[in-house]
Amino acid sequence: MSENPHRTFGELQQRVEALAERNNWARFHTPANLARALSVEVGELNEQFLWEGVPRSAHGLQDEIADCLLLLLRLSQVAGVDPVAAAHAKMDVNDRRVWLPDGTRDKSRPLLDR
Amino acid sequence: MSENPHRTFGELQQRVEALAERNNWARFHTPANLARALSVEVGELNEQFLWEGVPRSAHGLQDEIADCLLLLLRLSQVAGVDPVAAAHAKMDVNDRRVWLPDGTRDKSRPLLDR
Amino acid sequence: MSENPHRTFGELQQRVEALAERNNWARFHTPANLARALSVEVGELNEQFLWEGVPRSAHGLQDEIADCLLLLLRLSQVAGVDPVAAAHAKMDVNDRRVWLPDGTRDKSRPLLDR
Amino acid sequence: MSENPHRTFGELQQRVEALAERNNWARFHTPANLARALSVEVGELNEQFLWEGVPRSAHGLQDEIADCLLLLLRLSQVAGVDPVAAAHAKMDVNDRRVWLPDGTRDKSRPLLDR
Repeated sequence: MSENPHRTFGELQQRVEALAERNNWARFHTPANLARALSVEVGELNEQFLWEGVPRSAHGLQDEIADCLLLLLRLSQVAGVDPVAAAHAKMDVNDRRVWLPDGTRDKSRPLLDR
Repeated sequence: MSENPHRTFGELQQRVEALAERNNWARFHTPANLARALSVEVGELNEQFLWEGVPRSAHGLQDEIADCLLLLLRLSQVAGVDPVAAAHAKMDVNDRRVWLPDGTRDKSRPLLDR
Repeated sequence: MSENPHRTFGELQQRVEALAERNNWARFHTPANLARALSVEVGELNEQFLWEGVPRSAHGLQDEIADCLLLLLRLSQVAGVDPVAAAHAKMDVNDRRVWLPDGTRDKSRPLLDR
Repeated sequence: MSENPHRTFGELQQRVEALAERNNWARFHTPANLARALSVEVGELNEQFLWEGVPRSAHGLQDEIADCLLLLLRLSQVAGVDPVAAAHAKMDVNDRRVWLPDGTRDKSRPLLDR
């Protein structure tokens, strides 16, 4: 897949940062405030699934996923976290965990050697 | 920055999908369940900021950001949403919004021409 | 039902306040922090329903409902809100709303006269 | 304080149940759905605190506290939990816990005898 160079993940991070700078949001965008803002957006995401368990609309779901990703990227920026590197590091652990049939991890078992 | 080809965003998506397949999580991983699971992780993320407004630990924050991103990617997969494309589309709108000094958008104003 | 006078709703509010005072939690217990803490507990409540949609355990569910109520009462105290009066006032509105078959309210319709 | 008999906590529970019955919400009001709905309302509650850490409006805060309490009561009803009894039981434990200066509990210490 040849990617549109202006629609990559890296470009997304730059757009998020540029919007915040253009609007002088530094004073609002503390890690604590952005974590709270993310909880608000995840609430709206979950509202999509009331009351039937399926999204109210495809566009609505897409929009809420977008808002969650944008806030997560902005939180990562101000907290000095590389979200993709952090997620890979977590996957390194997840890949070595023993998982129970109910979808939760087996906390009684040590990490596997892989 | 030359990226490690095994540590990119695209590779992350593949690892998330592979872990779910290896563990037969398809029956658990409905969009509705994953949206709920994301709300659980965002709760843990916010717990990091109790009670002082700063993260309890740098590693803890990194870990919770990772969990949120992983679930958001998995939700996107099963819902058939390209999260980066959706976020760019939302940024196209955000860039044209009029923002108030308090950091919220001015709903009384139409989108700007840009 | 004759209620145990030490197990009423009013007594619960007093116990919540007394615990906070005994531990000098005033500096932590701002409305903003307690709202965040409530989001953490509601995350734990929702974790009970992963991944099967039924509570992992009856006791666990009871425990999480308790934590949510306790935080909601504490938030109400520090915010100067009477939660029962506020909820009755909201029910006065809810009782006059027109509700759609999908369980959401009909925002296009005015409140009914009742 | 002599309470208005129609504005008590007990009466509130009855109004919540009556509204749900009048609208045939039983099919929507599973414990899992109501836990999700509570997360949506707690998101709205937290939105009140963006971005300054103080409620956007006193009425807005009151309204969101009300919605959270109403959903918590409805969840308790359909889950067969007495929320006040559950909260008292949790307070019995909280009163015996050892609390750290940072406002979290000391998990290394056993419950106190009281």
